[in-house]
Amino acid sequence: MRLPHRTVQTPVFMPVGTLGTVKAVPQDVLETLGAEIILGNTYHLYLRPGHEAVRRMGGLHKFISWPRAMLTDSGGFQVFSLSQLRKVSDEGVRFRSHLDGSSHFFTPEHSMDVQIALGADIAMAFDECTEYPADRNRAEESLRLTMAWARRSLDHFRAHRDEVVWRDNLGVPQVPRTWGPGNESPAQSLFGIVQGGTYNDLRRESAERLVEMDFDGYAIGGLSVGEPRELTMETIAEVLPLLPADKPRYLMGVGYPDEIEQYARMGVDMMDCVLPTRAARHGLLFTSEGRINIKGKRYAEDQSPPDPACNCMVCRRYSRAYLRHLMHSGEALSATLNTIHNLAYYLGIMERVRKSLQTGG
Amino acid sequence: MRLPHRTVQTPVFMPVGTLGTVKAVPQDVLETLGAEIILGNTYHLYLRPGHEAVRRMGGLHKFISWPRAMLTDSGGFQVFSLSQLRKVSDEGVRFRSHLDGSSHFFTPEHSMDVQIALGADIAMAFDECTEYPADRNRAEESLRLTMAWARRSLDHFRAHRDEVVWRDNLGVPQVPRTWGPGNESPAQSLFGIVQGGTYNDLRRESAERLVEMDFDGYAIGGLSVGEPRELTMETIAEVLPLLPADKPRYLMGVGYPDEIEQYARMGVDMMDCVLPTRAARHGLLFTSEGRINIKGKRYAEDQSPPDPACNCMVCRRYSRAYLRHLMHSGEALSATLNTIHNLAYYLGIMERVRKSLQTGG
Repeated sequence: MRLPHRTVQTPVFMPVGTLGTVKAVPQDVLETLGAEIILGNTYHLYLRPGHEAVRRMGGLHKFISWPRAMLTDSGGFQVFSLSQLRKVSDEGVRFRSHLDGSSHFFTPEHSMDVQIALGADIAMAFDECTEYPADRNRAEESLRLTMAWARRSLDHFRAHRDEVVWRDNLGVPQVPRTWGPGNESPAQSLFGIVQGGTYNDLRRESAERLVEMDFDGYAIGGLSVGEPRELTMETIAEVLPLLPADKPRYLMGVGYPDEIEQYARMGVDMMDCVLPTRAARHGLLFTSEGRINIKGKRYAEDQSPPDPACNCMVCRRYSRAYLRHLMHSGEALSATLNTIHNLAYYLGIMERVRKSLQTGG
Repeated sequence: MRLPHRTVQTPVFMPVGTLGTVKAVPQDVLETLGAEIILGNTYHLYLRPGHEAVRRMGGLHKFISWPRAMLTDSGGFQVFSLSQLRKVSDEGVRFRSHLDGSSHFFTPEHSMDVQIALGADIAMAFDECTEYPADRNRAEESLRLTMAWARRSLDHFRAHRDEVVWRDNLGVPQVPRTWGPGNESPAQSLFGIVQGGTYNDLRRESAERLVEMDFDGYAIGGLSVGEPRELTMETIAEVLPLLPADKPRYLMGVGYPDEIEQYARMGVDMMDCVLPTRAARHGLLFTSEGRINIKGKRYAEDQSPPDPACNCMVCRRYSRAYLRHLMHSGEALSATLNTIHNLAYYLGIMERVRKSLQTGG
């Protein structure tokens, strides 16, 4: 996947960097771990430090000193899950900030403006994430909104994509330009988001209408929101064949290690999830021996590495006993080391899947 | 200064790693920064994870995976500053843990046992840190206790120093043995602590009696506890000439950047202070342009590095605006990056002083 700031090998797992930082992990460590693309959350960055401030400082890549690829979500999901007193109309969503209660109005056009100001390599269409369970009427109404917003997102994005601050100069000196003669138009991409709840016909309708609009890539949204795993699988299997194989296919907000492997093998190109990073901060480590809760007293004098089969910088150097001590003592280093290992584990899964797919395995 | 785990260039600044971690900074970053020796706090490590647990796991170096030199304080200072309901007798100090209120009794002998179990390269005699201001009677009584405890610390330490867990095997594979034929006895060192408040004759008496006991090194304690700077200077100038120049001279718990430079030039070999690390977590950065509080709104769009004259990994990569955003957003990376810079600044001062002393500057 050729993006302005990076040619990304797929399938890829994207660590979540909500506020312009993958929580507790310095950027150089993310590079060492092999992270090729990270997420930023439009809702959060719009509130702090503000998209106009980020644009004035040269865009998100430059602001956070991340030379590789980035993706911003549309802000929609956070508006629905975090903000207060939201009121949805055809025009957009009025909501109150979860930080200070101030009032804001997001439309598809505004989401595009914010995302162009942030300047990630990939922006996402403004959508309404359908909750689970949702009855047929609710899912139809939600899909109607998401399709109308997708059209408006795309039109506004096409009219303004060239305003991205790094259009003529990536701004991050470390970045080698991955385009040149014959590929003179590095620009942001916009992905559409397939919704439709757990109704296969709505999912199909959503996918087909988005493909007609001709986005740069397609995401499957509204999954991993509480539905049973078989339903997730079924929906992915239903939608994937409808999306063009020559454009990236992104499954949003998923999932556990076995899930990301499974979905990658089904043909998903991109996934993101807060699970490895958030769980790490609560002491939950993903290992080749299963999940372990490093807070447990049983690890108090366990001198083996967090994951004996892992070769990450944490497993090479530190013991379970030390990680347990850091967590138990409330030390900041705990979140850093736990997160580094979990990300190494997730990125390692994707690397194995890539190799296996290359060799036809 | 030749220590079992490292030959340390002096004068040296020692970052404080209270609970077996220099807060928010991974060990490999400390190595990159050039930290040659770090502190551990006996009081804290005794409570969590416990000195016997640390010994069973091969000592503090191995437990925290720090191959370079370490020093543990005696626990005395924290007992007096952190614990509750303490009761001092000639025998020792009874106190309640600041964590769970449990009752503990520390004697000089017990402090030695704990420090031998932890196994730092340098242990400190158990002392009573005289507060400021202290009247003559109080300072005399405190000194009497500290001198009696110094004798008991030394006797007990000499009888048991060979019990350190790494006596025959340093246990940290990365550590090159800095001794060999002709220097067959790697062992912990014990430093005595000069007290005496702000009374020059008491300070002299303290220094002379400790030198008679023949410690491996000498510390000046009870300074930077609220007294005016001239009094600190005067006391250091009074005490230093009384301490043997061929043994390390350690000024405890000091200080601001200009202070550590000044005292190093006066002949102090070792200093430690929580200031660069603790201030960092509150957003205070030490720079060649003076102190800056990175929380300030004036830095919201300041794209210059934290310290334009600094070449540390933080100043090379990140802007003041980004550090301000991290702090403002309560992000964990804030403490990490701020601390890395402040330590680089402190370690850089000492490196410059060492070079200048070598060239007679």
